Amino acid sequence: MEPFATRLDEVAARKNTMVCVGLDPDPRRMPIDDVAQFNKRIIDATHPLVAAYKPQMAYYEALGIDGLRALEETVRHIRDVAPEVLIVGDGKRGDMGPTATAYATAMFDVWDFDVVTVNAYQGSDTVEPFLQHPGRGVFIVCRTSNPSSRDFQDLRIDEEGKPQLFEKVAEAAERWDIGGNIGLVVGATFPMELRLLRADHTTMPILVPGVGAQGGDVIKAVKAGVDGNGRGMLINSSRGIIYASDHPKDYPRYAKIACQSLQRQINHALEAVPGSAK
Amino acid sequence: MEPFATRLDEVAARKNTMVCVGLDPDPRRMPIDDVAQFNKRIIDATHPLVAAYKPQMAYYEALGIDGLRALEETVRHIRDVAPEVLIVGDGKRGDMGPTATAYATAMFDVWDFDVVTVNAYQGSDTVEPFLQHPGRGVFIVCRTSNPSSRDFQDLRIDEEGKPQLFEKVAEAAERWDIGGNIGLVVGATFPMELRLLRADHTTMPILVPGVGAQGGDVIKAVKAGVDGNGRGMLINSSRGIIYASDHPKDYPRYAKIACQSLQRQINHALEAVPGSAK
Repeated sequence: MEPFATRLDEVAARKNTMVCVGLDPDPRRMPIDDVAQFNKRIIDATHPLVAAYKPQMAYYEALGIDGLRALEETVRHIRDVAPEVLIVGDGKRGDMGPTATAYATAMFDVWDFDVVTVNAYQGSDTVEPFLQHPGRGVFIVCRTSNPSSRDFQDLRIDEEGKPQLFEKVAEAAERWDIGGNIGLVVGATFPMELRLLRADHTTMPILVPGVGAQGGDVIKAVKAGVDGNGRGMLINSSRGIIYASDHPKDYPRYAKIACQSLQRQINHALEAVPGSAK
Repeated sequence: MEPFATRLDEVAARKNTMVCVGLDPDPRRMPIDDVAQFNKRIIDATHPLVAAYKPQMAYYEALGIDGLRALEETVRHIRDVAPEVLIVGDGKRGDMGPTATAYATAMFDVWDFDVVTVNAYQGSDTVEPFLQHPGRGVFIVCRTSNPSSRDFQDLRIDEEGKPQLFEKVAEAAERWDIGGNIGLVVGATFPMELRLLRADHTTMPILVPGVGAQGGDVIKAVKAGVDGNGRGMLINSSRGIIYASDHPKDYPRYAKIACQSLQRQINHALEAVPGSAK
């Protein structure tokens, strides 16, 4: 199987989209009760517009075994109706040794995700087992979209140039990459940091959460984060798409409209990027 | 319900043990095939000797839904036969906002863990939702037992005193604590760092993995990590206890012997600690 960075590039180019839809089923917000049905109808309405879906593990785990069964059904449905779309398992797992190996088995072999988010606080041991799965990939949590991301990620390191911790994480991620299987998670709410990271890491794919409900500006994020070909990013929106309507009849249609709008914003921003393929 | 630090202190004092048994069922090493049965027989043989059990989520997730059903059964069994024992859910979850809230629901309400490990790379937002569950607690991943923990955790921060990142994490953990619900994870393989952290954080409970298979020295770890009362720690061994024998008939007996040996080593080390309750 091709490296995940190549697969991402291909699907994004072919479908002209960098949209990633976050599948975060929250019973307090879903217009229907059935999680798998909720997801399937979103997927049916949106898949021609998206490069990736990103189920957030926490929401399924919070519903217990039933939630995880719905996740299983969701992944199967994506494979059936949109086999070209990448599935990003957002679990931010991070452990070492045999435990990290077990997590890689869980995320790739059990759940069948194409790429997973990993928290690398424990260093290279955390990431290495995930690289043993050909064609699969890892997005390393680097600079997140939440306010308290500053607590640690922005700390300045006492060495030449005084880089911030998130820069050290990105630097290590690039070093650990063995042929297009590592990318970064960088929140849309911090476009300056995104620009800095893209300048230092010209080819790594970047998963950008934080647009929509979290307030990140799509245009700024795209301009800051695209690679030299005007690609190399996934722009994720979860709540802004899946909860675009709270009505059980029309929520798939509104999810589609929200997807189209995000895709248009991204492509509009790309027009202003020199060298962009758009 | 009492704060988790108090509950931990009480069970450790009453049963004279700081032993934590890691329940990491690995099909390649288990002497019998059935995960729930494997765990239950370990639990039946060891519970009088332990303060806590620590199921590592990765091993259950790697077995899919069946693995998670076995985890459910395991937790229920511990509640039945040893209701005083704490259950540490080792998942090193770390996310923010509604996602962190969903993880707290999963770990406390669905899985019924008393305390969970959390990776705080994303800052206070990661931890806060876990503190909304009275009587439950969090062990924040601080200085881990693996070789590559140095990659980031040991980086020196460019500020007065030039603390290392793991010290900043510990400092934040103590600041975030709201009454005995936060502890630290510090690997036994780094006793100097453990001593440093205990000196700065005199009352926080510390979960110490890394003895046994990972090579950490129990005596050194206990001397470095106990609080002023000679308590405040959980010393975890997983493989050294649950795989003490690979024979389907006698593995519970050998698990018990390994537990007794760990308990004796800990209590022996405590005799040398001034002010220890032992």
